[in-house]
Amino acid sequence: MTAPVPGPVLVVGCGLIGTSVALGLRARDVEVHLQDLDPRNVALAVEAGAGTDAVVEAPALVVVATPPAAVVDAVRSALASYPQAVVTDVASVKAPIVEAIDDPRFVGGHPMAGKERSGPTAGSGQLFEGRPWAVVPGAETADDAVALVERCVVELGAVPYRFAPRAHDDAVALVSHVPHLMSVLTASLLAGAPEGHVELAGQGLRDVTRIARSDADLWVDIIGHNAAAIAPLLTQVRDRLDTLIDAIGGDPRSLESLLERGRQGTTTIPGKHGTLPTELASVFVPIDDMPGELSRLVGDAEGSVNIEDLRIDHEMGRPVGLVEIVVLPERADKLLDALRGHGWAAYR
Amino acid sequence: MTAPVPGPVLVVGCGLIGTSVALGLRARDVEVHLQDLDPRNVALAVEAGAGTDAVVEAPALVVVATPPAAVVDAVRSALASYPQAVVTDVASVKAPIVEAIDDPRFVGGHPMAGKERSGPTAGSGQLFEGRPWAVVPGAETADDAVALVERCVVELGAVPYRFAPRAHDDAVALVSHVPHLMSVLTASLLAGAPEGHVELAGQGLRDVTRIARSDADLWVDIIGHNAAAIAPLLTQVRDRLDTLIDAIGGDPRSLESLLERGRQGTTTIPGKHGTLPTELASVFVPIDDMPGELSRLVGDAEGSVNIEDLRIDHEMGRPVGLVEIVVLPERADKLLDALRGHGWAAYR
Repeated sequence: MTAPVPGPVLVVGCGLIGTSVALGLRARDVEVHLQDLDPRNVALAVEAGAGTDAVVEAPALVVVATPPAAVVDAVRSALASYPQAVVTDVASVKAPIVEAIDDPRFVGGHPMAGKERSGPTAGSGQLFEGRPWAVVPGAETADDAVALVERCVVELGAVPYRFAPRAHDDAVALVSHVPHLMSVLTASLLAGAPEGHVELAGQGLRDVTRIARSDADLWVDIIGHNAAAIAPLLTQVRDRLDTLIDAIGGDPRSLESLLERGRQGTTTIPGKHGTLPTELASVFVPIDDMPGELSRLVGDAEGSVNIEDLRIDHEMGRPVGLVEIVVLPERADKLLDALRGHGWAAYR
Repeated sequence: MTAPVPGPVLVVGCGLIGTSVALGLRARDVEVHLQDLDPRNVALAVEAGAGTDAVVEAPALVVVATPPAAVVDAVRSALASYPQAVVTDVASVKAPIVEAIDDPRFVGGHPMAGKERSGPTAGSGQLFEGRPWAVVPGAETADDAVALVERCVVELGAVPYRFAPRAHDDAVALVSHVPHLMSVLTASLLAGAPEGHVELAGQGLRDVTRIARSDADLWVDIIGHNAAAIAPLLTQVRDRLDTLIDAIGGDPRSLESLLERGRQGTTTIPGKHGTLPTELASVFVPIDDMPGELSRLVGDAEGSVNIEDLRIDHEMGRPVGLVEIVVLPERADKLLDALRGHGWAAYR
C-alpha cells in the first residue's frame, strides 16, 4: 500500500481539488503535469508548485478534476488520448459517470474533502489527510486500475473505501446531502424569527445549522446531480415528520421511539482512528479571553489525558469563554482532577 | 447590576440546576438553604458545599428547581409559606407555569445551561457562566421582584433576557426543541443504513447529529410540555420539505431560494461577545496524535490571533488529527503565515 505512485500523472482541471491532488503528489516527488481550459488556472497552479504545464506523452494516471458537467467528456478524451493510462475523476456523484463510461482503465473516485474556498490558490497537498476517499470501479474496470488509484489515494493521506456506483450515491445522500438539507431547513426557520428569539440560542443550534452557511450555488449543483438518491430519503423524513407531528403532545411512546432511533443512529458514525463509535464525555472549563489561556489549558489537559475533541462556546456579553474538552468517559474524572489541580474551575 | 444578592436564598430541589444555583451563590457568600423531597439529595448537596439543610425563617428569594410537573405546586407553597419572599423557577417551558400562578412575587426563569449529567453531584457553580437565562415575569409580577431575579442571574455569571411567557416558549421551540427534533430525524436515517455507508461521514454529519445523542426520556418530557409551540414550527418544516421534494431534480430556483434562506437564517445567530453574527474563516492543520502537539499548536496560533473556535476532526485509520482553527476572516492569512513560520503544514 505504500509503494510510490508511478508517474507521470496528468491532472486535468486546476481547481481546489485538482491542484490539491497535484500538490500532494509533487510533495511525494511524483512527476505531475497540469491542464485546464483556463490558462490562468494552470499558471497559478504551476506557480504554487503543483507541477508543470509541459505536454505529457504517456501519463500512467490521469486525474480528471473538471466541473461535474464536463467530467464524462474529459474522461473519454483522456482514455482516447492516452491508451496506456488509468483514468480517474473526483466528482461527488458517481453512478451517472461510471455507468456512462465503464472502461477497464476508468475508476471513479470521490474525495470527501472540505471546500470552503475554491480555485487553484486554495489548493493544499494536505487537503486529503485522514479523509475518506470513495473508490468506485465500474463493472468493466480492471483490478490493477483500481489498485493504482487506491495507491494514489493512500499516498495523498486519504483512506480509500470501495463502493459500487449507486451505493456510493446513496451513501453520500445519507451522510452528506440529506443532513445538509436538514441543516438548511432548520436554519431557514430562523430567517423569519421574531426579534430577540435567537438570543436564547446555544451550542446545539450552532452545531445543527453550521453547514447551512455554505455557498448555495455549489449545493444546488451537488443536490441536483444526486436527486435520484436524495428524494427517497427526504420522503422517509417526511413520513417520520408526519408521525412526529401526530405524536407530539399526544403519544409519548411514539415520540420516545423516534428519539431512541435517533440516538441509535448517532452510534453508527465511526469514531476516531476508525474504531467503533464511542460514547464520549465532556469537561467544561471557563477561561479568561486572554492570549495564552487556551494553550495553557490545553497543555494542562494533554499532560493528563488524550483530547478527543474540543470546542469553544460563544458566550454572550462577557469577557470569558467556556471551553468544552471531550474525552473518553473513563478519563473524564482524571481530567477533572488534573485541571482543578492546576487551578482551573473545571466541571462536568 | 453587580450589587450582591440579599440572602437568605432557599433552593427547593437539589438536582443539577438547583445544586448549581446554590453552589454559585455560595461562592459569592450568599446564605443558602436547601430542600428536597429526597433527603439523600440534600445530603449530597450539603456535602458539596451548596449550603445548609437548616430550616430558614424568611428567605429573600426562593428558587424552585423541582421536576417540571411539581413546579406549580412548589411555587404556590413557597409563596404561601414565605410572604416576603420573591419566588422563581427554572423549568424549560414557561407559559403554563407563569399563567397558572401570576403573582406579584413570582418571576418565571429558565437558564439555558447544559444537562449532560444530572443530580446534585453533577452540580457546578460555573454551570451558568456566559449562558443566556430567560427571565419571564407574568402580567402581575412586580418590577422589584424581576430586578431581584435578574441580579441573581447576573451574579451566577449568566446573561438575563426578558421574555413574555408565550414568546419564551416560541423562542425555545425555535432555537432548541425543533433543532433537536431535526437532529433526531437526521440521525434516525442512519439507524437503518446499509453497512459501510457511514464510512463516508464527515464533520458535517457529526455536527448535525450531535445533540441527537441526548437522553430520550428527558426530551420526551421537554417536548411534551412545549407541544403547543413546537407543532406549528414542525408544520412549517413539513411545508418546506414538500416544496423541496417537488423541487429536487426539477426546479433549481426553488432549491436555491431555500438554500439561500437557510444561509440567511444562520446569520441571525448571535456571535461571540453578543456582537452581531460574523462570518468566520477556518485554517486547517494536520498534527501528530502525540501528547503536547495540540497545546504547542494552540500556543503558536494564540501568539498570532484570537481563536474563535477550534475543532479536532476525527480521522480514520491514521495516527494523525486534523485541527480546524476558526478565526475572523481578516486574520486567517496572518494565522496561516504564523503557523507555517512555526513549521506547521497549515492550509485554508
